[in-house]
Amino acid sequence: MIIEKIKSPADLKNLSISELNQVADETRQAILNRVSKHGGHIGPNLGFVEATVALHYVFDAPKDKFVFDVSHQSYPHKVLTGRASGFLGDVDDMNAISGYSSPAESPVYDNFEVGHTSTSVSLATGLQKARDINGTDENIIAIIGDGSLSGGEAFEGLDTASELGTGIIIVVNDNEMSIAENHGGIYKNLSALRQSNGQCEHNWFKAWGFDYKYLEEGNDVEKLIEVFKSVKGTKVPTVVHIHTEKGRGFAPAVEHKEQWHWGMPFNIETGESLFPSGGESYEELFSNWMLGEMQNDKTLIAVTAGTPAAAGFGPEKRLKAGKQHIDMGIAEEQAVAMISGMAKGGLHPVWTVYSTFIQRTYDQIAQDLCINSNPAVINVVGGGVNSMNDITHICLFDIPMLTSIPNLLYLAPTTCEEYFAMLRWAIKQDKMPVALRVPTNGVNHTSEPQPAEFSFVPEYKVTKKGSEVAIIAAGSFYQKGENVVRLLADKGIDATLINPRYLSGIDAKTLDALKANHKLVVTLEDGCKDGGFGERIAAYYGTSDMKVMVGGIKKDLYDRFDAQKLLADNRLLDEQIVEDITNIITK
Amino acid sequence: MIIEKIKSPADLKNLSISELNQVADETRQAILNRVSKHGGHIGPNLGFVEATVALHYVFDAPKDKFVFDVSHQSYPHKVLTGRASGFLGDVDDMNAISGYSSPAESPVYDNFEVGHTSTSVSLATGLQKARDINGTDENIIAIIGDGSLSGGEAFEGLDTASELGTGIIIVVNDNEMSIAENHGGIYKNLSALRQSNGQCEHNWFKAWGFDYKYLEEGNDVEKLIEVFKSVKGTKVPTVVHIHTEKGRGFAPAVEHKEQWHWGMPFNIETGESLFPSGGESYEELFSNWMLGEMQNDKTLIAVTAGTPAAAGFGPEKRLKAGKQHIDMGIAEEQAVAMISGMAKGGLHPVWTVYSTFIQRTYDQIAQDLCINSNPAVINVVGGGVNSMNDITHICLFDIPMLTSIPNLLYLAPTTCEEYFAMLRWAIKQDKMPVALRVPTNGVNHTSEPQPAEFSFVPEYKVTKKGSEVAIIAAGSFYQKGENVVRLLADKGIDATLINPRYLSGIDAKTLDALKANHKLVVTLEDGCKDGGFGERIAAYYGTSDMKVMVGGIKKDLYDRFDAQKLLADNRLLDEQIVEDITNIITK
Repeated sequence: MIIEKIKSPADLKNLSISELNQVADETRQAILNRVSKHGGHIGPNLGFVEATVALHYVFDAPKDKFVFDVSHQSYPHKVLTGRASGFLGDVDDMNAISGYSSPAESPVYDNFEVGHTSTSVSLATGLQKARDINGTDENIIAIIGDGSLSGGEAFEGLDTASELGTGIIIVVNDNEMSIAENHGGIYKNLSALRQSNGQCEHNWFKAWGFDYKYLEEGNDVEKLIEVFKSVKGTKVPTVVHIHTEKGRGFAPAVEHKEQWHWGMPFNIETGESLFPSGGESYEELFSNWMLGEMQNDKTLIAVTAGTPAAAGFGPEKRLKAGKQHIDMGIAEEQAVAMISGMAKGGLHPVWTVYSTFIQRTYDQIAQDLCINSNPAVINVVGGGVNSMNDITHICLFDIPMLTSIPNLLYLAPTTCEEYFAMLRWAIKQDKMPVALRVPTNGVNHTSEPQPAEFSFVPEYKVTKKGSEVAIIAAGSFYQKGENVVRLLADKGIDATLINPRYLSGIDAKTLDALKANHKLVVTLEDGCKDGGFGERIAAYYGTSDMKVMVGGIKKDLYDRFDAQKLLADNRLLDEQIVEDITNIITK
Repeated sequence: MIIEKIKSPADLKNLSISELNQVADETRQAILNRVSKHGGHIGPNLGFVEATVALHYVFDAPKDKFVFDVSHQSYPHKVLTGRASGFLGDVDDMNAISGYSSPAESPVYDNFEVGHTSTSVSLATGLQKARDINGTDENIIAIIGDGSLSGGEAFEGLDTASELGTGIIIVVNDNEMSIAENHGGIYKNLSALRQSNGQCEHNWFKAWGFDYKYLEEGNDVEKLIEVFKSVKGTKVPTVVHIHTEKGRGFAPAVEHKEQWHWGMPFNIETGESLFPSGGESYEELFSNWMLGEMQNDKTLIAVTAGTPAAAGFGPEKRLKAGKQHIDMGIAEEQAVAMISGMAKGGLHPVWTVYSTFIQRTYDQIAQDLCINSNPAVINVVGGGVNSMNDITHICLFDIPMLTSIPNLLYLAPTTCEEYFAMLRWAIKQDKMPVALRVPTNGVNHTSEPQPAEFSFVPEYKVTKKGSEVAIIAAGSFYQKGENVVRLLADKGIDATLINPRYLSGIDAKTLDALKANHKLVVTLEDGCKDGGFGERIAAYYGTSDMKVMVGGIKKDLYDRFDAQKLLADNRLLDEQIVEDITNIITK
């Protein structure tokens, strides 16, 4: 095997084309080995193998600088820069290598930690400017997929790269797909460029002032080497547009591109998942409920910014929803402004977004939506510790962010029944923007009757009356609150349990009432506590005699954490909470 | 005067071209009357008078929907939609009409509250989709300036508008200027389009699939009417690119376009400001200091996203700074990613940004900058109550936002000397991203010696040791803390005063030490207290006997507030704070 001997890209330099092709084949097999055992990004990496071999053959990393957008196509780069063990070894070896570009892992070859989309050109313009000021001559190469081009930051990066006017090479890896299919007018131009072999009348990149090269055979190592050699050392902003095949070399991934964009471990012979989905999921429940409602309400619109699966809207359901499903590409700012406009126009849009991506649109939520009081709905999924855990995808910050924006109601349902009651209300009301935090601790049901028509009043719900200690347990941590109350009862402490139902404000009346026969309030929230829900309650009680213990995760950078360990480190295991409560009230 | 009789745009329909020209002239004079007495946006409004007359003549508001980007060109629309009094009347009449598009003010003619840039097309796509679903046939018209095109959200909006494929009209008001000169590759194409009368080889808009019309005479009512008539009722996404003159009809504003973009009241005969600048300002101090440092350090780069004046970098200073000043257009996401890349490449970038605009880049600060620990500096200006006060420009939210992002140090200097000591350190260190909150309560000096080389250690600074009560007074509210301590002394209370120096964390050691001889801690911060600095201190003390009173502004929507009244409403006047403290400690 050649790739086991490749310790750095320099080892590629003396290989023949046929040897480079062998390197590509081996790299592809190594990637398949990793993703089949460990899971990860499949299709985009398989399509970018040959381009990576050619890039490292032609350019001279680490002197020349690569910046990978969203890192979905960074695995071949990892294989060729001393990290093949993460692809050839056992699962422990694989765990040691992250799924994203990471200077923490490879300070020499990875220039940035990258996991969110549309950032590569912008980051690269910083290296471009530094090179120009420092008077050095390295090549700066930003790699960006066609899907990532739909994000505004990519546009801003292209705009600056063009203005700087000096050498930068932007490799547009066009596999005709985003995570799902592409959405956006720009794809009309990419299509026209592909169909005309880069010669169509109005070239979006040339209009912008870029030098432009098109390569139809984006999986042909020899032709890729030729085109990259032709731009090496360029002194002007240059786009190299290559047409690649997503999923290349693995039939299921070629056939079902969306399904195989990212995946859990699978049988490499059959493609069958080793973790077949089972049981209830909020994605399925949500999408089925929406499709049902849509039949009676043509103004109900399911919205996504490039991640329809987050809402359970796979290809079939999108087809069923028709014009009542809209995907604007990976463009969260657009999603928020557009749902505000849709609500203004009388529609009832529901935008589903992962917690980690909502931070891409703070200003639009504040300005385009909340200042305007338009009654759109944001369905926040994945918030909390039981979610994505890569450093770039931490889902702990949506509570501090959303609850600091005026005029946004942030609801935190605790069960399936409460979620749908709240969702139905949020869609029907016409007064204000509402966000809902979908629970991430499984689908819990309650036999407690829900109001036939939930109607939000800013009140916490006291679900069990006790004394001395009150547990205010929000959203996904409500069941933890139930556990704590049970454990306290075992110790003879009759605690009060409260479901606050909303995170964006304080129910002063309920809090004041607790003063009569409680001396400690404990808040539990499934997210970062700095700037979050509990601190406001601590501040509210600040000048009173009530003690407050705020339970949440400490603000910090986390990477590939273990959820149980993270909880333990933050004294959030049920028994730890009980122990801390006992210590305080018996003091 | 015709415009006094125009109660709605319908009143324009029967006018002749010469009468419409008179309407335009009167509207221009009315705008000049307002801005000379009241201040506001001057150049962009003067340039868009004729286009507004033509738009309202051709289209049928309120059935047809206009969306104005950033509202800098919305004054003529206000004059023609029943709000001429705000332009012709006295200053009280003018105060009654805001400087921005506002449904609160005109629910019929203004579709959105808008004050941040690059949002109009995105918002309009929501109306477009609503129209398509509702099966109605109104025209949707988004107006956007060339300067606003540099923001990513505008791109995302154009991308969706094109994809939707149905009728939307995007009027690109090209006055060849942003607030300052334009920056970005796209302006190469706008220039080529102007020079070729819309016929150049690669048309950026046509590449995107838009129908495209160019009008060179963008201040000619008759020709504008012709071009707008030609697109009225269009069933496809359409761009009408008009070339206008910024400042049209007022010689000083034509000659000095940047200076006259926005202004305070001035003498309408001479153009002389009625509020000549005087005394020290942080803008001047900062830009002079930077220019001095740049001479010895070519890696020091001043960065702006379209608002160079915020850092005191007027045209002359930009010229002096040369390649060490960079403006990326109104593209804050790009600014953050690029400073991260510049810092990675060994430069020392300092990006100056208004508090209200930093929220346009939450994700980039978290992902592109902080996860990467690149040592770039963000200079946050205007944060606090003594700042912009329009609903769209409130500067109270930077503390909650920035302090919820892991791995960002947010410093809060209290005096000029402390600011420059911190700034120098932030630029020289190479460990972490640092933001500084420039004081907004005037330039205060201290005779207290500053460390020759400030070196940040996460410690609050106890500036006066007392007992019983400790005041932790941050940044611009430090002098308020001094006042409170003095007033308490008059009452025989010997309070401790603390300058926390940083907002992004807790100095547990200092807080613990206070427990020995204090029973109340008061936090004072010049911003929204929900999710802010003081709540964390309240939470830290939550399970102790220390009482905490958190002083800050309640989270809410505010519009054109009076600073003193806002402080009073939040019990933040010096005497109120003293009164509340006295009540608590004597209870």
